[in-house]
Amino acid sequence: MSSHSQLDNLRVVLVNPRNPLNIGAAARAISNFGFLHLRVVNPYELAFREARSAVGASPLLTRSEEFKTLAEAVADCTLIVGTTGVGRRDPQHPVKRLEHAAPLIRKRLVTSRVALLFGSEKRGLSNEDLSHCHWLLRIPTREEHRSMNLGQAVAVCLYELARDPHAAPPPEKRTAATAAELERITSSLLDALRASGYLKSLPTGAPKRRSAAPTDEKIRRLVRRLSLSSSDADLLLGILRQILWKSRSANDPAG
Amino acid sequence: MSSHSQLDNLRVVLVNPRNPLNIGAAARAISNFGFLHLRVVNPYELAFREARSAVGASPLLTRSEEFKTLAEAVADCTLIVGTTGVGRRDPQHPVKRLEHAAPLIRKRLVTSRVALLFGSEKRGLSNEDLSHCHWLLRIPTREEHRSMNLGQAVAVCLYELARDPHAAPPPEKRTAATAAELERITSSLLDALRASGYLKSLPTGAPKRRSAAPTDEKIRRLVRRLSLSSSDADLLLGILRQILWKSRSANDPAG
Repeated sequence: MSSHSQLDNLRVVLVNPRNPLNIGAAARAISNFGFLHLRVVNPYELAFREARSAVGASPLLTRSEEFKTLAEAVADCTLIVGTTGVGRRDPQHPVKRLEHAAPLIRKRLVTSRVALLFGSEKRGLSNEDLSHCHWLLRIPTREEHRSMNLGQAVAVCLYELARDPHAAPPPEKRTAATAAELERITSSLLDALRASGYLKSLPTGAPKRRSAAPTDEKIRRLVRRLSLSSSDADLLLGILRQILWKSRSANDPAG
Repeated sequence: MSSHSQLDNLRVVLVNPRNPLNIGAAARAISNFGFLHLRVVNPYELAFREARSAVGASPLLTRSEEFKTLAEAVADCTLIVGTTGVGRRDPQHPVKRLEHAAPLIRKRLVTSRVALLFGSEKRGLSNEDLSHCHWLLRIPTREEHRSMNLGQAVAVCLYELARDPHAAPPPEKRTAATAAELERITSSLLDALRASGYLKSLPTGAPKRRSAAPTDEKIRRLVRRLSLSSSDADLLLGILRQILWKSRSANDPAG
């Protein structure tokens, strides 16, 4: 979701939040994912004041709006979605998994305001709160441990709303090594292996023996499997040449 | 991701965590999304002891493993992925968006262990930590506010790994109202509108006037647009009949 109006149309509504850290965490997640508005209904006053006045409290938190009732907090929205950790309490109230809920919310955000409600840390949303909702959203946590931390639940929901699997991957700055680079490495590696005695060295001037070929091919295939970048190929070639120089001077101390 | 072995193969690794609340929050998110293993490298000792011994510390946290070095913590894994809030620091180190990273991690989890690393709250992962990684993962936060809270970052990553857009939606327990039910409502509503004086009532026994038809149709279309369930149709019919009864007795107090 990249359109500014979509981001601007979401209202994250915390109902009866009790912990200032959670209010701060919700504000941080809203900002991380590019949304803009936090509303708080009937907060524990001290917690809200503490969160707002915390060192480094974000502009978003300072700008957050406080309401006495949920009805007032969602009055200007056309879609009200409640979050719930538990399974469906009321078979008449549709509960959608977050993955399925997000596209519906995004669609509505194009044209009008949507309220996304989170209940208090202890109790979640009350039945009275839920009666204001068009439908409910459930983060797909596992059956045996459904209830999420409030700040984490807000972050996961907003991530899913901002999620974009079609976003362009970053430009590939890594350039793959050319065949010529790989062949230089192959040949330096073979030289180094011979100089170190790992492979039998060929007598100078002797014709290449047939038995050398399988080893050459094995090493050549190994070098190709490393999927080297051009700059890693440079690095590796330098290393091999240094090793080769060292082995040769060790073999021929007088040289 | 529903396979137990996939869930069992992930190692969430917190490197140098400092805040016990964040260690606890990471453990909670791991449990929420069905994963099983938390590893902690060189934690601030007090924080780790505090988190482990907190009231209601989860079995997962109590079971978490502590390591002195990152190398030891990831030794049994075949894919090491670092998380980073910032853009690419090192063009040689590929950075993938979370949406693109998750399928690669899930695929590897089928056959072997994967470590997902999170750095300390203040500094993230160091360059030394990053050198242990095959590649890096970035949660798509906005440019101007990239750095996420640790517990929230863990929750978002694990949500994406556990995310399943193809999960079957819950069975629709809501049965749509039949045409007959909708027609009973339409006709009761028309009666109530006439009894209340909203519509002109027809003289008893008078032939239906042509001009009534457009109103009837308007009301019939309105009722269809409500997309009522069968039980809501029942509820509404009861309400309308009560209203109708009341209006008629008001119109005819002697009756």
